[in-house]
Amino acid sequence: MSGEDAPAQQQNAVDQKQETKPAEEPKAEPAKTDSPPAAAAEAAATPAATTEKAPEEETFTYRALVLTGHGGYDKVKLQVKKGKPTLKAGEVLVRVKACGLNFADLMARQGLYDRMPSPPVTPGMECSGLVEAVGEEVTDRKVGDKVMVLNRFGLWQEVAVVPASHTFLIPEGMSFEEAAALPVNYITAYMMLFDFGNLRPNQSVLVHAAAGGVGIAATQLCKTVKDVTVFGTASASKHETISQGGVTHPIDYRTKDYVEEVRKISPKGMDIILDPLGGSDTHKAYNLLKPMGKLITYGAANMLAGQKKNLLAVAKNWYHQFSIHTLSLIQGNKSVCGFHLGYLDGETELISQAMNIILDLYKEGKVKPRIDSTWHLEQVGDAMRKMQERNNIGKVILTTEPMPEEEKKEEPKKEDKKEDKKKDDKKKDDKKKDDGKKEEKKDDKKKEEPKKEEKKEEEKKEEAKKEEK
Amino acid sequence: MSGEDAPAQQQNAVDQKQETKPAEEPKAEPAKTDSPPAAAAEAAATPAATTEKAPEEETFTYRALVLTGHGGYDKVKLQVKKGKPTLKAGEVLVRVKACGLNFADLMARQGLYDRMPSPPVTPGMECSGLVEAVGEEVTDRKVGDKVMVLNRFGLWQEVAVVPASHTFLIPEGMSFEEAAALPVNYITAYMMLFDFGNLRPNQSVLVHAAAGGVGIAATQLCKTVKDVTVFGTASASKHETISQGGVTHPIDYRTKDYVEEVRKISPKGMDIILDPLGGSDTHKAYNLLKPMGKLITYGAANMLAGQKKNLLAVAKNWYHQFSIHTLSLIQGNKSVCGFHLGYLDGETELISQAMNIILDLYKEGKVKPRIDSTWHLEQVGDAMRKMQERNNIGKVILTTEPMPEEEKKEEPKKEDKKEDKKKDDKKKDDKKKDDGKKEEKKDDKKKEEPKKEEKKEEEKKEEAKKEEK
Repeated sequence: MSGEDAPAQQQNAVDQKQETKPAEEPKAEPAKTDSPPAAAAEAAATPAATTEKAPEEETFTYRALVLTGHGGYDKVKLQVKKGKPTLKAGEVLVRVKACGLNFADLMARQGLYDRMPSPPVTPGMECSGLVEAVGEEVTDRKVGDKVMVLNRFGLWQEVAVVPASHTFLIPEGMSFEEAAALPVNYITAYMMLFDFGNLRPNQSVLVHAAAGGVGIAATQLCKTVKDVTVFGTASASKHETISQGGVTHPIDYRTKDYVEEVRKISPKGMDIILDPLGGSDTHKAYNLLKPMGKLITYGAANMLAGQKKNLLAVAKNWYHQFSIHTLSLIQGNKSVCGFHLGYLDGETELISQAMNIILDLYKEGKVKPRIDSTWHLEQVGDAMRKMQERNNIGKVILTTEPMPEEEKKEEPKKEDKKEDKKKDDKKKDDKKKDDGKKEEKKDDKKKEEPKKEEKKEEEKKEEAKKEEK
Repeated sequence: MSGEDAPAQQQNAVDQKQETKPAEEPKAEPAKTDSPPAAAAEAAATPAATTEKAPEEETFTYRALVLTGHGGYDKVKLQVKKGKPTLKAGEVLVRVKACGLNFADLMARQGLYDRMPSPPVTPGMECSGLVEAVGEEVTDRKVGDKVMVLNRFGLWQEVAVVPASHTFLIPEGMSFEEAAALPVNYITAYMMLFDFGNLRPNQSVLVHAAAGGVGIAATQLCKTVKDVTVFGTASASKHETISQGGVTHPIDYRTKDYVEEVRKISPKGMDIILDPLGGSDTHKAYNLLKPMGKLITYGAANMLAGQKKNLLAVAKNWYHQFSIHTLSLIQGNKSVCGFHLGYLDGETELISQAMNIILDLYKEGKVKPRIDSTWHLEQVGDAMRKMQERNNIGKVILTTEPMPEEEKKEEPKKEDKKEDKKKDDKKKDDKKKDDGKKEEKKDDKKKEEPKKEEKKEEEKKEEAKKEEK
C-alpha cells in the first residue's frame, strides 16, 4: 500500500505573506499589551473553525492542513486560507509554532474517529504557539503569551482560535516543540496511571508501545513513584532507548510472546496495564492482571493496518473486542477502565488539574517530552507514516516554520538535513514548476521504496503473529 | 415463605462442658504466658476444619453452626462437635466470642456462593475472640491475644483454627462485638473507595444500602476525606440514622426513583458508585457515572429474593447482568470494577495494609462499627432473616455466649430482653423436654407472624417496583 502514497499536496504556499518567524518578529503584530481586540485581530488570519469572513481583510492568509476525505496519507493536504478571525468571548487566537501528531489523528484520517467532524476539516488535537489576540472576557491570557493548546481538532494550521480555557502557559525553558509534544500524551498517561490506575509504590505496570508518545510519558510518570517496575513492549531496536528512559523490563513483542515474558518475571501478573491496542490484546491484558489489578484501555491501534481503512482489521478488532461481565470482575477483583482524552473535552477542570501537576513535574526535571522528529507541514504524510508504522521513538511533531527551498523533499526537517546535495540541486531546477515538483517527489519516494518494502515485510510478520495469538 | 421457617436446631447443647465465659476465666486454659503449645492445646476443642481427632481428648466439645444443605434459614443448625485440635505450623486456635453475618453467608446458604465448600460446612467469614493456642512458627501471636479473624468460611463456632496471618490484634477499647463487625465491611468499603475508587476531596459517592454493614462503613470512610458528598439509599425509616452517620442525601429507593433523585441534586452524576445489587441496578449505576467515574460492583443482592434460592430472581439477575464493551468505556471515560473480599483470601499483604489503616482510623475515632443487633447461635435463623429482609441498621452479630434459659426464644439477645415474663415462665416448664422446646419456638414464631406478613407485603411491592424499572 505504501507504493500508492502521494505526498501531502502543497498549494500556492509561495504566495504567503508570512515571515519565517511570523509570531516572534511580526510586522503587523500588536505589542504585548492589552491592545484592543480589533487591533489584535487585524494581524491574525481566520481559522478554519470561524466560517464568517471579513471581506476587508482578505489579504490575510495562513496555511492549514486539511483532511479532504477519508483514506491514505495523501488525504491530508496543505491549503492556504484567507480571511480574518472573529473572536468570540472567551477565545484567543494562537499563532501556531508546532503541532503534535496523535493516533486519533491517524484514526480520523481513516474515518475511524467520531470526535472529528466530516471532511473537509483540519485535524490536530494539540499545538504550541503565541497568543496573538484575545477575545472579550479573557482575563488570564494576554497577547504574547507562550501557550500550549489542547482542542478536539483543528490545530494543524498556522493560526487557530480556541477557548482560552484550552490553553496552558508554557513554563520557562520549554521549547515550542516540547510544548506541542506534551498535552495529549502526558495528560493521558497521568490520568490513566494516577486517577484510574491509582499507582502506588512497589507496583508493576505493563506499558504497551513503550517507545511511543504515551509510552514514554507513562514510563517517566511511573518513575515519579517509588520502586515501580515498568514492563515495556517495543521492537528490539528501541530497547536501549526505553531502558534509559526507565523501562525496567523491555520486551520485544515482535519476536516473543509478551504474556510469557511478563509471567517469567512476575508470575502473579501486573498491577496496572495500559492497553492502546484493543482486540485480543485486551483479553490478554485482563488475564495478566493481579487481584486488585487495573486494565486501562485507551485505543484500538490494532485497527490501524495499512494507511487506508482496512476492513478486515476493523472487523477483527470488533470481533475480538473485549466485553466483560460483572461476575468475572467480582470473582477476579479486577478493574477495567476506558480512557480517551478526546472524549473528555468538556472536563476543563479535570484536565487543568492534571496539567498543573505535570507542569510542576516538568519544572522539577522529572518529566520531559522526547521528540522523535520534526516535520514541515508539507511533510505531514511522511510524519503520519512514521508514526503509523511505529518507527518513532517519542513524539512526531509538525512545525509551521516554512520549509526552506533546499529542504523541500520528503525527509524530516531535523533528521535528514545533511542529505546529499544532488537532490537539492535537482529541486532548485524544478521549484517553479508544479508538475515538476510532483515528479521530484515521486523520485524521492522511489529512493525510499526499499526501506518501506522491508517495513512491509516486518508488518506482515507482525500481522501473522497477531493472528496466531 | 417465612411461614415455613423452622428455628435453627439446637442439639444437646445442655451436654456442653463450657463455662458461660469459657475463654476469659477458663478452668483448664493456660495462663497468658508463652506456655508450650501442648498445654494450650489441652484446653482447646477440635475445630471442624481439623479432621484428625485425638481420642484421648474426646471430652472436649464445642458448639458449631453447620450448614447442612442449601435452602432456607433452617438449614443452618447448631451442633456439638467433639475432639481436640491439631494446629499446623503458622496456625492459631481462637476461642470465638462473636461472629459477623455477611451477605455472602446468606448467598452461601442458598447455594449461590462458590467460595464456600458443599454442605455440611460451617459458615462465617469473620469473628473475634481470644487466642487459646498457637502452632509452631507463629511468632506474632500469643495465647491470650484478643484478635479479630478473617477467613474464607468456618468461623461460626466456638473454637476455630486459622492461619495466624488471618488474625488482627484488637485495639484497646474495642469490644468483641465491634471487632466481629469490622473486618469484612470495613476492608471491603476501604478497598473499594480508596484502591479502586481513588476517592479524593470534593467527590460524590452513591452508596446503596447505606444502612447495611458495608454502607455504614463506606459512609464513615467517605467522611475521612474532605468535602465528599454521600448519596445513600435506604428505606425512609432509616434516614435519620444514616444522616447522623454522614449520608448527605438519603434517598428512599422504595418510594422514589433513585436515579432521578440523584440527577436532581447532581445533574452530571457521580464520581463513585458502590453497587451491591447487581442486575439492572448495575446498568443504572453505569449510566449515572460522571466522566472519569468509577462503578464498583461487589455483590448481587438482587439475586436474594426469599429465603430459598429463587430461580426467577437468579435468572433475572443473570439476564440483566451487566456486560460492558471497551469501546463504551473509552468513549465514556469510565471504570467498572468488581470486588469481593471472599476471592481475595490469598492476598494477605493487601488485606493487612487496609486493615492497619482502618485500625488507625478507629483509634483516631474516625470509624466505629455500628451494631444492629446481637443474637445467640441458637437464633442464627432469625439473625439471617433480619439481614436478608433489610431490617437491620448496621451489623448483625452472633455471640457464642450461651443463651440464658430465660432468653431461649427467638428474639435477639439485646433487643428484646425486657419481654414479658410469661414466656420465660413457660420456658422454664419446658426446658428439659426437647419436643416441648420446639413447640415453644413455634409459639414464638406465631407471635412474630403478623410483623413478617407486613414485611412480605413490603417485599412484594419492592419486587414489583424493581420489575418496572
